Amino acid sequence: MSTESQEPALSEQSTQDDESSKSVSKKAAKKEAAKQEKLRRRQEANLAAAATSSLSLDSGDDPLSANYGDVPLLELQSKSAKDVSDWTKVGLLNESLKDQLVLLRGRAQAIRAVGKKMAFLVVRESGFTVQCLAQVQPDVVSPQMVKYATALSRESIVDVEGVVSVPSAPIKGATQQVEILVKKLYSVNKAVPTLPIIVEDAARSEIEIEKAHQAGEQLVRVNQDTRLNFRVLDLRTPANQGIFRIQSQIGNIFRQFLLSEDFVEIHTPKLIAGSSEGGSAVFRLDYKGQPACLAQSPQLHKQMSICGDFGRVFEIGPVFRAEDSYTHRHLCEFTGLDVEMEIKSHYSEVMDIVDRLFVAMFDSLNKNCQKELEAVGRQYPFEPLKYLRQTLRLTFEEGIQMLKDAGIVVDPLGDLNTESERKLGQLVLEKYSTEFYILHRYPLAVRPFYTMPCYDNPAYSNSFDVFIRGEEIISGAQRVHVPEFLEKRAEACGIDVKTISTYIDSFRYGAPPHGGFGVGLERVVMLFCGLNNIRKTSLYPRDPLRIAP
Amino acid sequence: MSTESQEPALSEQSTQDDESSKSVSKKAAKKEAAKQEKLRRRQEANLAAAATSSLSLDSGDDPLSANYGDVPLLELQSKSAKDVSDWTKVGLLNESLKDQLVLLRGRAQAIRAVGKKMAFLVVRESGFTVQCLAQVQPDVVSPQMVKYATALSRESIVDVEGVVSVPSAPIKGATQQVEILVKKLYSVNKAVPTLPIIVEDAARSEIEIEKAHQAGEQLVRVNQDTRLNFRVLDLRTPANQGIFRIQSQIGNIFRQFLLSEDFVEIHTPKLIAGSSEGGSAVFRLDYKGQPACLAQSPQLHKQMSICGDFGRVFEIGPVFRAEDSYTHRHLCEFTGLDVEMEIKSHYSEVMDIVDRLFVAMFDSLNKNCQKELEAVGRQYPFEPLKYLRQTLRLTFEEGIQMLKDAGIVVDPLGDLNTESERKLGQLVLEKYSTEFYILHRYPLAVRPFYTMPCYDNPAYSNSFDVFIRGEEIISGAQRVHVPEFLEKRAEACGIDVKTISTYIDSFRYGAPPHGGFGVGLERVVMLFCGLNNIRKTSLYPRDPLRIAP
Repeated sequence: MSTESQEPALSEQSTQDDESSKSVSKKAAKKEAAKQEKLRRRQEANLAAAATSSLSLDSGDDPLSANYGDVPLLELQSKSAKDVSDWTKVGLLNESLKDQLVLLRGRAQAIRAVGKKMAFLVVRESGFTVQCLAQVQPDVVSPQMVKYATALSRESIVDVEGVVSVPSAPIKGATQQVEILVKKLYSVNKAVPTLPIIVEDAARSEIEIEKAHQAGEQLVRVNQDTRLNFRVLDLRTPANQGIFRIQSQIGNIFRQFLLSEDFVEIHTPKLIAGSSEGGSAVFRLDYKGQPACLAQSPQLHKQMSICGDFGRVFEIGPVFRAEDSYTHRHLCEFTGLDVEMEIKSHYSEVMDIVDRLFVAMFDSLNKNCQKELEAVGRQYPFEPLKYLRQTLRLTFEEGIQMLKDAGIVVDPLGDLNTESERKLGQLVLEKYSTEFYILHRYPLAVRPFYTMPCYDNPAYSNSFDVFIRGEEIISGAQRVHVPEFLEKRAEACGIDVKTISTYIDSFRYGAPPHGGFGVGLERVVMLFCGLNNIRKTSLYPRDPLRIAP
Repeated sequence: MSTESQEPALSEQSTQDDESSKSVSKKAAKKEAAKQEKLRRRQEANLAAAATSSLSLDSGDDPLSANYGDVPLLELQSKSAKDVSDWTKVGLLNESLKDQLVLLRGRAQAIRAVGKKMAFLVVRESGFTVQCLAQVQPDVVSPQMVKYATALSRESIVDVEGVVSVPSAPIKGATQQVEILVKKLYSVNKAVPTLPIIVEDAARSEIEIEKAHQAGEQLVRVNQDTRLNFRVLDLRTPANQGIFRIQSQIGNIFRQFLLSEDFVEIHTPKLIAGSSEGGSAVFRLDYKGQPACLAQSPQLHKQMSICGDFGRVFEIGPVFRAEDSYTHRHLCEFTGLDVEMEIKSHYSEVMDIVDRLFVAMFDSLNKNCQKELEAVGRQYPFEPLKYLRQTLRLTFEEGIQMLKDAGIVVDPLGDLNTESERKLGQLVLEKYSTEFYILHRYPLAVRPFYTMPCYDNPAYSNSFDVFIRGEEIISGAQRVHVPEFLEKRAEACGIDVKTISTYIDSFRYGAPPHGGFGVGLERVVMLFCGLNNIRKTSLYPRDPLRIAP
């Protein structure tokens, strides 16, 4: 357990005080906040103590005891009269439900007692929060029930039944602008009283922490490693709820677009005999006594599927790289979006697919994932991606020239390093107002041996990279489909042809001209949302130091 | 190279002779077929010889030489005036295109010369075939061009430009009922003249082979292993084109249904520290100096994602089992369709999803994959799956009783073996007219430790299996979400709790009641299409003896 995350913080539950608080000075507000914080910490301690000794609740004497309490495990397993549709999602609570009785299931994100007769409960579901008020009321809410509420441990799963009310002032401490007047409150499953991470801490933006710091207050900052160690808690933040829903949508748009263009979804094996197609380091294993490895990409099998007459194929699946990369943009396992297709006459056909696919994707995300993008932006502020209706295509030579004109000299037949790529991204943004563009006709020498050279100049190749915000997310090319020529190219690149004979043989039974590209799903999410680390967009990231949870 | 597949066979190209052939007797037809076959073999030999020495064509003297020939590699890479839309798909050729000039790209599946002035070419694309006729015609088709056509090697990629004509008699040797009168013919890429498998052999049904056998003719039967060794050729059969398009559709329907029900698609790691959740054998490997293994299922991580507040999740991804199973239904790597969801009050909520999801899937396949299902059925005849609008649910006890009533006694608290499952499938079909049903409330003792026991009888559990045509395709259950109880269950099952502490700890921070299920994609395709081996529905299958191609 990390000590740095032991400092919880509760956002102000300000419905009741809102009108008055507007008139008090900033200094007084700060003082009040500090006081509240002290109070809260004391309550937090009491609460933790209470939760560990749940016997301290003597609800047995309470005639209203049926309205609250722990739901026994047995009851959860019985077919109750309730239907799934009886529950209302927290994210759907709004003023139109005023005065209606609703049933919610969510987590007790924050609990605050006000005296012995009132308790505020912030209930969270899928990143959306609503403030609930349990207040002593004859024949409905007993003082014991309020006590029960305040003794709940944070992150416990609760069922709340109550009436929707619309407060006159905006609610600051919750996403939904209604309040639930609690009638019944049950705990479905209890969290341990001391959590390694408080979700509100994990959900805090740097800006908030800085602002508080300047005001003399020290708020908890949960670091990346702690988050990943306790990913189950970290994933509950609104930003993470948004990130992985956006990721899900990107996969969905990718597929829907390609299916509508007559692509077939395939699933190729990840267990490969020998040592994959070479290149970066592979994970090796023993396969029933045979040497095997994990596929570094579906390159061979997607090309084979083209030779198998599927015309146009795509795959979404894990890709394994045993590289010792500790950068913000490398993982040892990530989700590859792979495409391969027949080319009728020119590799621009592949770029046409990239162009239309990604413009459709960005459009759809901006239209259908507004809530999710806002949730991400609240914690990690970013500018919406600038992109053109028709994606800019620059040749590598043109890119080099732009860099040269800006005083940056790079090898005209070498690869671009991360720094040059970033710089070129800036220049392109200034000149063409886009943060998404294609750079094509790369020098042949910097591409894999199976890349088709340009017909007019074999120093270049029918290949391309695609950039978002100055970082590469896609690599693609036309492939050499003539086996004899493929052998020549492999030899020219110093590869022992014998080791890749299976690959080359695939093209001997007639192979159509073809090309394709590969995209890293996590990179697309990271760069579309302007995030600074790929570990933020992998559900359970794997890097050279991390293989858990 | 397998010798058994060296015997090619050409189906009759009968457009020209069709009217007359109707009047000849069966015996004469057989004689004629044998003669044709002899002729064909001789041509095949000539053709192979010609293809290896392409210099034998002296088209240089031909004033019409621009109308045919090998397309040089360089030309393929240049941006031609042609657009992708200039090509017509073979599968879309029909009578409505009569007299139109079309451009096709496909494979030369079969070539037959009739004298020196005429050549028939069957061109195949994505499993669809069309007959093309190149006939000497002044100013269009030269004798050299006919010679060029007959010298093409089978499976070479060709561009055919020609006029659509509608013959008076049905065409037996092709799927499309039009004929292309060839004007231009180019070879885009040549296959080697001697193929290890002839696609027409691989596409032949057992019935055809049997019929021919009874008629005294020996047709080639390509066995499973040869097919898999030369999968690139085998995949080109109409049945395989259908199978993997159906598979693609199943994945699509699965996703679309779940997304519409508010599920989030996730991608969990396949590289796992330690040794996965136990059970069947795992593939082990070294992960940067740490012991690791390949995930046998996304069980832990999908449950963790529920603890991470995603509510409802699904995953489509590879699943690895190092089992030594050589059955018709086991693979070492397959595609798992995994679902996990919060349960509000009863595990029937999970079965409700299974029910509606699969009925929607079967409906959609029957409606949208007719051509593909027909293509599969032509080679592997099967009856359409019988299923009800609302899926039958039987308890395990009811199933046992049905078996008992039929004179089969099985352990009432044991598992069903494959034979009993099959028998029960028959009984269910007879009684309820369905080949798709759910069997639930399995004995607790035969399910994994994390399965929730039944509230009313802990000898049973909140679990289910789902069957198609008497074989299990889905296994699902409510999971134990209370960590203390999960520990007890693990201990009761003889599992060292320390080894699964990460798993159990995931539930300590508040876990909602939840359940889910896993489906094997390849099994769904196999059983929906009534196929006899799961290797037929895996693109590049992996079993204990096979890790290539």
